[in-house]
Amino acid sequence: MPSISNKGQAMPESPIRKLVPYAEAAIKKGRNIYQLNIGQPDIKTPAKALAAVKDNAIEVLSYSHSAGFESYRNKLSQYYRNHNIDVAPDELIITTGGSEALLFTMGSICDAGDEVIIPEPFYANYNGFATSSGVKVVPVKSKIEEGFALPPISEFEKLITEKTKAILICNPGNPTGYLYTKEEIDQLAEIVKKHDLFIVADEVYREFAYDGAKHYSIMSVPGIEQNAIMIDSVSKRYSMCGARIGCMASKNKEVMSTAMKFAQARLSPPTFAQIASEAALDTPQDYFEEVIQEYTSRRNLLVEGLEQIPGVKVAKPKGAFYCIAELPVKDAEDFAKWLLESFELNNETVMVAPAAGFYSTPNTGLNQVRIAYVLKKENLEKALEILKAALKEYKG
Amino acid sequence: MPSISNKGQAMPESPIRKLVPYAEAAIKKGRNIYQLNIGQPDIKTPAKALAAVKDNAIEVLSYSHSAGFESYRNKLSQYYRNHNIDVAPDELIITTGGSEALLFTMGSICDAGDEVIIPEPFYANYNGFATSSGVKVVPVKSKIEEGFALPPISEFEKLITEKTKAILICNPGNPTGYLYTKEEIDQLAEIVKKHDLFIVADEVYREFAYDGAKHYSIMSVPGIEQNAIMIDSVSKRYSMCGARIGCMASKNKEVMSTAMKFAQARLSPPTFAQIASEAALDTPQDYFEEVIQEYTSRRNLLVEGLEQIPGVKVAKPKGAFYCIAELPVKDAEDFAKWLLESFELNNETVMVAPAAGFYSTPNTGLNQVRIAYVLKKENLEKALEILKAALKEYKG
Ligand SMILES: Cc1ncc(COP(=O)(O)O)c(C=O)c1O
Ligand SMILES: Cc1ncc(COP(=O)(O)O)c(C=O)c1O
Repeated sequence: MPSISNKGQAMPESPIRKLVPYAEAAIKKGRNIYQLNIGQPDIKTPAKALAAVKDNAIEVLSYSHSAGFESYRNKLSQYYRNHNIDVAPDELIITTGGSEALLFTMGSICDAGDEVIIPEPFYANYNGFATSSGVKVVPVKSKIEEGFALPPISEFEKLITEKTKAILICNPGNPTGYLYTKEEIDQLAEIVKKHDLFIVADEVYREFAYDGAKHYSIMSVPGIEQNAIMIDSVSKRYSMCGARIGCMASKNKEVMSTAMKFAQARLSPPTFAQIASEAALDTPQDYFEEVIQEYTSRRNLLVEGLEQIPGVKVAKPKGAFYCIAELPVKDAEDFAKWLLESFELNNETVMVAPAAGFYSTPNTGLNQVRIAYVLKKENLEKALEILKAALKEYKG
Repeated sequence: MPSISNKGQAMPESPIRKLVPYAEAAIKKGRNIYQLNIGQPDIKTPAKALAAVKDNAIEVLSYSHSAGFESYRNKLSQYYRNHNIDVAPDELIITTGGSEALLFTMGSICDAGDEVIIPEPFYANYNGFATSSGVKVVPVKSKIEEGFALPPISEFEKLITEKTKAILICNPGNPTGYLYTKEEIDQLAEIVKKHDLFIVADEVYREFAYDGAKHYSIMSVPGIEQNAIMIDSVSKRYSMCGARIGCMASKNKEVMSTAMKFAQARLSPPTFAQIASEAALDTPQDYFEEVIQEYTSRRNLLVEGLEQIPGVKVAKPKGAFYCIAELPVKDAEDFAKWLLESFELNNETVMVAPAAGFYSTPNTGLNQVRIAYVLKKENLEKALEILKAALKEYKG
């Protein structure tokens, strides 16, 4: 029997999906589960986006331009301009989700063995994209005590080697909910300029900034136009994760023409989804205001609820819709399994994501979980009750 | 300025798109172009597939299962059974086009430096997927004089090294139109078993077999269940290239569970497109009968027309919708450019794909072009007239 690749063996399992078999078993037992483990919002997709797909007049569903519809790129460029981000239509490639934008970026800037520095905890699939590109992730630790703020620049400096090609940040952060300040972004800009590195900013949660805080994009920083690459996606912004549309943007022409070769090899991004994404750009501002308000009140409810559970520590998120909570347990993965296998309150339980999978340093975050506040408040309240009761009962 | 990767530099430009700037210039001059250069059929997408998308009742466009809708995999498995291909739903992963299935396959079975043997000429994007996976393509030459039949197995044997992980075939072939016989497939089965290799069969043109010939799938060969991986796509079958839905299938559990890790990292295939693809499975058989009849008569018209042009040699295709033609020119790329830049007949011209880009051996196929018979007959007739007049006039 021929054998699979070493790369394939090294591909990480998604930490979010590890617990799925336990959840399935619990559901079979008739248990209701509050799923706080994944970033799948319950928010309705904007009606205009859905309607545009229904109104299509397609007779032959053909390939689109490999960089995506020109009309969509034009309109998207305008959207960015409205957000103080100057990206021309030809500085954009429409991708199949932010996921593909991350893959194109790694392929365009890294060879096998190259290193990318990433503040941890980070979006776990960065590991998968890095492994499939042969890239080594070099973590730099951010701390729950500091709300997961940017680690001191001196910590980055220590990690830079000849192999370092980029620093990758997620802003606002999944799983941390941290929103980088202008000062932090400026510090990053300085270090990448000094060491001639790329800075890749995953800004898929751009719209989700709370308490009046302003998101500061990597594309707005003067002087690093040749270093900056932005990753974006419609998945979270318009609650249309199933569309599979994202984009990659940079003013570095060499990067974009290289990424175009990857884009051409896979032909084009999905057509129906581009129709929906283009129409979504007409979503009125009050949609976002409502959504932000909803997430803010969910976050407040969740954080206040968690803080009232003895022994729980939580970094109040400033953006996105996740938070990391430290629990009074030794092994949060064991606790998460136990919640699904052995615990119930009125035949209900909770599913959370063990946070260790978001760290690249071994044995880190073992007592932490990531909680996504993607459910409505009454369900979050019930989930908090269950968590509280479970932590009382659990003897891990 | 930070520099792009060596891999990015090595990524090939698509040979099909090289001529696009020349075509754009010709269009600006008001010239009408018959596009025989790309595999974008003009056939209508089945009404049921398009209607299903319009009838969707989605409110939250959420991620689907990373392996694709369960309902779609069940129905697709039944479709395969109807084609004498035994693939269970859990032996299938729905991908974003056949393109992504090829990427997952290479990632799952090959490490950087590993080799894959491919009969040339072959689908040019195999080069792109190989480069982005760090894989070395080892070509084995098939000949126009033999209609691009399978090269002798002894030629494969000569090329097998310690690094060889797989043989990749395209059946029916793009760009050759060749349909492998049962005997040829059986020979391939023997050699991969003997040398413990994978055999990857790209069967995206399965339905397009002419003159009553029967397609023989790699999945129907007994004894190589652990070696065989099938690549498929809805793009050509239902003329829905823009959907971006394909699949990867194998009975090798290790291969499939490895590919699933790649699939999970990118979350899910596009939802609207899965709805369309699932509905497309209900396309009545007479749709295909009509389509096959149409392509057969287009092929006959094209091949007979080409054979009547002095100095043109053509291998009559048995499947797919391409043929390779040898022209009485030294440099088919120069001729193809000249057609766009300097030639016109009643202000019309023709766009063909220079075939050298489909060969991996340097300086091969220089006097050949690939012609896609994806236009209706009256247009093919005009294109033939133009080609004939152009070859008379051309002094390359
Ligand atoms: C930080 C971050 N980046 C990228 C993605 C990829 O999303 P998509 O491929 O749906 O755009 C996600 C999805 O959860 C994410 O959280
Ligand atoms: C032989 C072959 N394989 C795979 C593909 C990829 O097609 P898709 O990604 O649209 O399924 C094509 C497209 O032209 C092809 O010709």
